[in-house]
Amino acid sequence: MAVPPDAGLARMIASLVRDGVRDDVAVEEPLEIRVRGEAIAVTMRTPGDDEELALGFLHGEGLLAGPAPAGPTEDLAGNIVEVDATLVRLPPTRRFYATSSCGVCGKGALDEVAVLAPPATPGPRVARELLAELPVRLTEAQPGFARTGGLHGAGLFDEHGALIVAREDVGRHNALDKVVGRALLDGLVPLHGRLLCVSGRLSFELVQKAAVAGAPLLLGVGAPTSLAVALARDRGMTLCGFARGGTVNVYTGEQRVA
Amino acid sequence: MAVPPDAGLARMIASLVRDGVRDDVAVEEPLEIRVRGEAIAVTMRTPGDDEELALGFLHGEGLLAGPAPAGPTEDLAGNIVEVDATLVRLPPTRRFYATSSCGVCGKGALDEVAVLAPPATPGPRVARELLAELPVRLTEAQPGFARTGGLHGAGLFDEHGALIVAREDVGRHNALDKVVGRALLDGLVPLHGRLLCVSGRLSFELVQKAAVAGAPLLLGVGAPTSLAVALARDRGMTLCGFARGGTVNVYTGEQRVA
Repeated sequence: MAVPPDAGLARMIASLVRDGVRDDVAVEEPLEIRVRGEAIAVTMRTPGDDEELALGFLHGEGLLAGPAPAGPTEDLAGNIVEVDATLVRLPPTRRFYATSSCGVCGKGALDEVAVLAPPATPGPRVARELLAELPVRLTEAQPGFARTGGLHGAGLFDEHGALIVAREDVGRHNALDKVVGRALLDGLVPLHGRLLCVSGRLSFELVQKAAVAGAPLLLGVGAPTSLAVALARDRGMTLCGFARGGTVNVYTGEQRVA
Repeated sequence: MAVPPDAGLARMIASLVRDGVRDDVAVEEPLEIRVRGEAIAVTMRTPGDDEELALGFLHGEGLLAGPAPAGPTEDLAGNIVEVDATLVRLPPTRRFYATSSCGVCGKGALDEVAVLAPPATPGPRVARELLAELPVRLTEAQPGFARTGGLHGAGLFDEHGALIVAREDVGRHNALDKVVGRALLDGLVPLHGRLLCVSGRLSFELVQKAAVAGAPLLLGVGAPTSLAVALARDRGMTLCGFARGGTVNVYTGEQRVA
């Protein structure tokens, strides 16, 4: 299932009148992620594939060992998802938590991810031209973006550039969580030998999610940050940015680029 | 002070070798925000103007009544900022907090902001052409973006489109927090009669920050979400998106657009 079904798409888009004409915007609603009744996180997301989002999020934080049953609660608005799993550990309690990192220096942040993610496995080796083509293929699997211009995309590809799964969300981290969650349910994690592509910029958080999922390569349309590059290098991953107009910048792991 | 001084710019950019050539990327490092010794939040941000970021963040969450002394701690990495203030209230304790919203439905989220932000004051009335020009003026005040392509920008303008302050960060919410923090320190909050402009998409969180700061108008280069539009309408604000190539879409508050 590469793209969500039409019923899913309808939940992702809202119509409104703007400047006197009908226009579509991406839906944004809060989602509470519960594990066996306990509220673990609240995230603003685009409705749809909430179970995948919950599983992918928990996995990326190193809290979940593998796939687990997940589904909506009786909450009528459909904004609470319940996961039936024993967590590997409980996350720390804080008042606010704007990021997943506990470290307050870059080195500390890298060390934390190292605990959750073993170094990337060797391979695959992918032609530079194929890498530059991935965002085009991802966009073709983003019906919500085509309608609204306001949804980030994330896609999982095999080493030949064939799309395995694509997801959309107002939050780029959510889109990647949904892809990883789907891959978990399909038994594809760790993502050895596969390629991840995102539509936006490359932050530390996105590289962390890719690393914990076992992906050897992460590619984005936008710029990487310093800590994103440092983390990719630390975990032996290939990080590619500015994938636009047929070219791509390779920041780390050049040995996987032919 | 419209743009950060050069010393600030140097902290925001890291040089690396990419594809055999020297390249610049935006710096991303964690920042812990403490209030009188208690850790309130950790956010991934671009170093620089951390005091402004802390004040703007706390104000946007409705925790801070006004400007307060803030500064770095003895932490050598410079990634902890301490604020000396009595908070209006203590934020709730949660394990993760991916968003500032406590509500798990859109209506709940709107209701929360309504408590923090009175309805927008009338005016100003701004020519559509001027609004479409704001992102160009903001980009001119983004030296870090020019070097890296990886920094979001936020700018505060007067009703004639003159730039008052601009800030950059890897996180668009941080860039806006820095602008609001600076405005707080300069006695400009509430931002009645002034215009806020951001370089990216328009999420609920950004409209919340603008609303709590008292800005009547928020404009972005990218798409708004459904909840961003709903919140702007609820608070009587003007929300403009897709400000590109000389045009702009007006989603709410058309009476302020001439």
